Amino acid sequence: MSDTPSLRLPAGMRDFAPRAAAARRRIAETLLGVFESWGYARVITPAFEYEDVLGLGLGPEARAEALRFVEPSSGRVVALRPDFTPQVARLVATRFRDEAGPLRLCYEGTVLRLERGARSQRELIQAGVELAGVGGPHGDADVIALGAAALAAAGLAAAELELTVDLGHLGLMREILAALELAPAGERAVRAAIAKRDPAALDAALDDARAGKAVLGFVRALPELAGDPEIVLASAARQAPSAAIRRAIGDLQAIVDAVAERAPPVRLHVDLAEVRGFDYYTGVRFQAFALGSADPLLQGGRYDDLLGRYGRPSPAVGFAIDVEAAAAVLEASAPTSARPLTSDGAAMTGASAAGVLVVGDPAAAAARAAELRARGQLAAPLLVAMARAEAEAYGTRWGYREVIDAGGGAPGAAMAAGAATQKTKKRRPPERPVRRASQTRKG
Amino acid sequence: MSDTPSLRLPAGMRDFAPRAAAARRRIAETLLGVFESWGYARVITPAFEYEDVLGLGLGPEARAEALRFVEPSSGRVVALRPDFTPQVARLVATRFRDEAGPLRLCYEGTVLRLERGARSQRELIQAGVELAGVGGPHGDADVIALGAAALAAAGLAAAELELTVDLGHLGLMREILAALELAPAGERAVRAAIAKRDPAALDAALDDARAGKAVLGFVRALPELAGDPEIVLASAARQAPSAAIRRAIGDLQAIVDAVAERAPPVRLHVDLAEVRGFDYYTGVRFQAFALGSADPLLQGGRYDDLLGRYGRPSPAVGFAIDVEAAAAVLEASAPTSARPLTSDGAAMTGASAAGVLVVGDPAAAAARAAELRARGQLAAPLLVAMARAEAEAYGTRWGYREVIDAGGGAPGAAMAAGAATQKTKKRRPPERPVRRASQTRKG
Repeated sequence: MSDTPSLRLPAGMRDFAPRAAAARRRIAETLLGVFESWGYARVITPAFEYEDVLGLGLGPEARAEALRFVEPSSGRVVALRPDFTPQVARLVATRFRDEAGPLRLCYEGTVLRLERGARSQRELIQAGVELAGVGGPHGDADVIALGAAALAAAGLAAAELELTVDLGHLGLMREILAALELAPAGERAVRAAIAKRDPAALDAALDDARAGKAVLGFVRALPELAGDPEIVLASAARQAPSAAIRRAIGDLQAIVDAVAERAPPVRLHVDLAEVRGFDYYTGVRFQAFALGSADPLLQGGRYDDLLGRYGRPSPAVGFAIDVEAAAAVLEASAPTSARPLTSDGAAMTGASAAGVLVVGDPAAAAARAAELRARGQLAAPLLVAMARAEAEAYGTRWGYREVIDAGGGAPGAAMAAGAATQKTKKRRPPERPVRRASQTRKG
Repeated sequence: MSDTPSLRLPAGMRDFAPRAAAARRRIAETLLGVFESWGYARVITPAFEYEDVLGLGLGPEARAEALRFVEPSSGRVVALRPDFTPQVARLVATRFRDEAGPLRLCYEGTVLRLERGARSQRELIQAGVELAGVGGPHGDADVIALGAAALAAAGLAAAELELTVDLGHLGLMREILAALELAPAGERAVRAAIAKRDPAALDAALDDARAGKAVLGFVRALPELAGDPEIVLASAARQAPSAAIRRAIGDLQAIVDAVAERAPPVRLHVDLAEVRGFDYYTGVRFQAFALGSADPLLQGGRYDDLLGRYGRPSPAVGFAIDVEAAAAVLEASAPTSARPLTSDGAAMTGASAAGVLVVGDPAAAAARAAELRARGQLAAPLLVAMARAEAEAYGTRWGYREVIDAGGGAPGAAMAAGAATQKTKKRRPPERPVRRASQTRKG
């Protein structure tokens, strides 16, 4: 049609059709279920809030990534949340101001980010947790182990996915940089050189450092201090030039030990040259990756300064899981495995792939579908007139296990055990080419 | 603290603390579970899109209620969705352009609306369905009965809540107004008078009508044609002045009959003077109310013109449930009933209220909590040092059923059956004053 309007979405925004939507919903619900079983209570926060309030709890990068506009009623600038963490921090600082014990909170929803470099925003589905009121390695380990357990429950710890948790420590990095006694510009140059793992740039940046040989040697060794935690941390502890740096390494060792004890079997990888998030994190920083994930599946860390910015000082650690990144990994790996998560049937219905499509007279079909639902089955009446072959094709497209006729004849006949094998069809996504179940099984 | 920043939220935006968040999440999941068991497949749509695309599928009121801003990458005006229906219509018109059979889709998420009159927006959580490709009473009845079944599953059909579904018919109203052969201004005056049920204004507005006595008599009788469907529709059928009007009344009768047959026992109420949504709905329009709900719990109707605006003409009917309105009704009624939905325990955990808080040495407590979780229990280590009485109070505040000690002594002792009765506590919301379970039970 020539007068069909252009129905494009803004850059970075997207729809999820049934199969993809069900997979994402299922991942999010699995993650939340695990969070709750670990004692994390669900909270819901608003889609946007005043930019200056939200900005209190964002690092400079995240603040720049927020999509802002003027709210009409107040004339003030608001920002669509680029991150749940500052919202949870605000909630803790207001509603839970007087709670003396640990606060375990979790959330799920969408965040909106302006992409760095690219000229568009991107909507992401996140599920995450915050643990406030617990400092030190035990709090870190609780959260990291929970993250690994949640990813495992969603199917991401399958051996072939090689789930890996990368651990860095920004508290350690702070100690090291403090020992160098550099001006801010020099400190930034050192951080940049470490980030690039560039020995020449690092040498140049260290020219003005007042630190002694032991400290300088340790800084020069940092880019090499990455890999297996046991080897890296032992080596780092031997070279540690000060008590404070030794303490930070000991902290990371305690986290590694506790995670190894509590988490499902995941690879741990330590990187002492990790400097990303320097302005935000105060202690451990962690990310989880699986084979084939371009983006981290999970990102988090300790930010003991955050709650103080909202007027309620308290240690805090948390993470967010990128549901889309998780779904992408699972979908990419689905052809070679039989995880129920990505089986169309399970994902579409949230239960068993037991949909029954009832054709025939609309009133009779509706009544029959109601009977089947009363027995716990997924059932829908077709409600429109269609030739039997067409109705069968429609049922296949929409993933119904069976097509039965409610009008005239014996509506129950097609439900008999003898017919079931013949008629059983895998639930198929409507957006993919339809193949008959028999072909799939033979092929 | 005098330097604590103001942490207020923009007008109309809000947080939900754990108990409230869990109740809302549970309602939404219950609704989606019912939608899916009726064959409606979940879709996910973006938080905002181009205002002109979204606006295609909004009535004039809803379009005015959308919160707009300029999207930075394109310089075009976007709107945060005030409604899911136009997004689902766009999805149907693009991804499901070639589907010949019925399309059953469902969704859940937040919408953002500028309040009429008030100078602020309001964020709402909605869960709803759209059925495209099925015209007539059978499609209407499928959707209305599903709405009633979903509300019932969420606990809203309890007898004392007097769940009522109001039915109007904008197709009928269109037929009547067409029969009057009025200029647009005159037609608006008639609609306004009918909406106000103002006989004098209606008489005045009908002055220029060219219709015969039978039509005028029927229009004047409209404000009285509200109440019990059986009485109202029989009376309306007797007075119907034309075949087209008789057909529309017959259509409503067929819907009423089918809903009565398929839905759980809810009151049906018919109102032939219903004119709200005239610019949007083309057939039946329905709303559900419960005792004590200021806002409708559910709103929907038939909009057979909607999909055509997206270049894919097709009949369509749908509804959205206001999760907050549903939660408010359930919470207001909770003291007099024992619905599991609003039991704190069930709502907090999504499972049984079986939380165990493990105190003592952090590493030992974490290990014990992991053991308990492996046995299917909700368990969390306290991780911080606290006197026993304080830890008990903390456990009560956060709704743990039991507080056990993992460090030293016999960690399992407190778990023994003898101690359970003594220690069992109802999960309580942290934001309400804490009472002991024993007080609640005696009082």
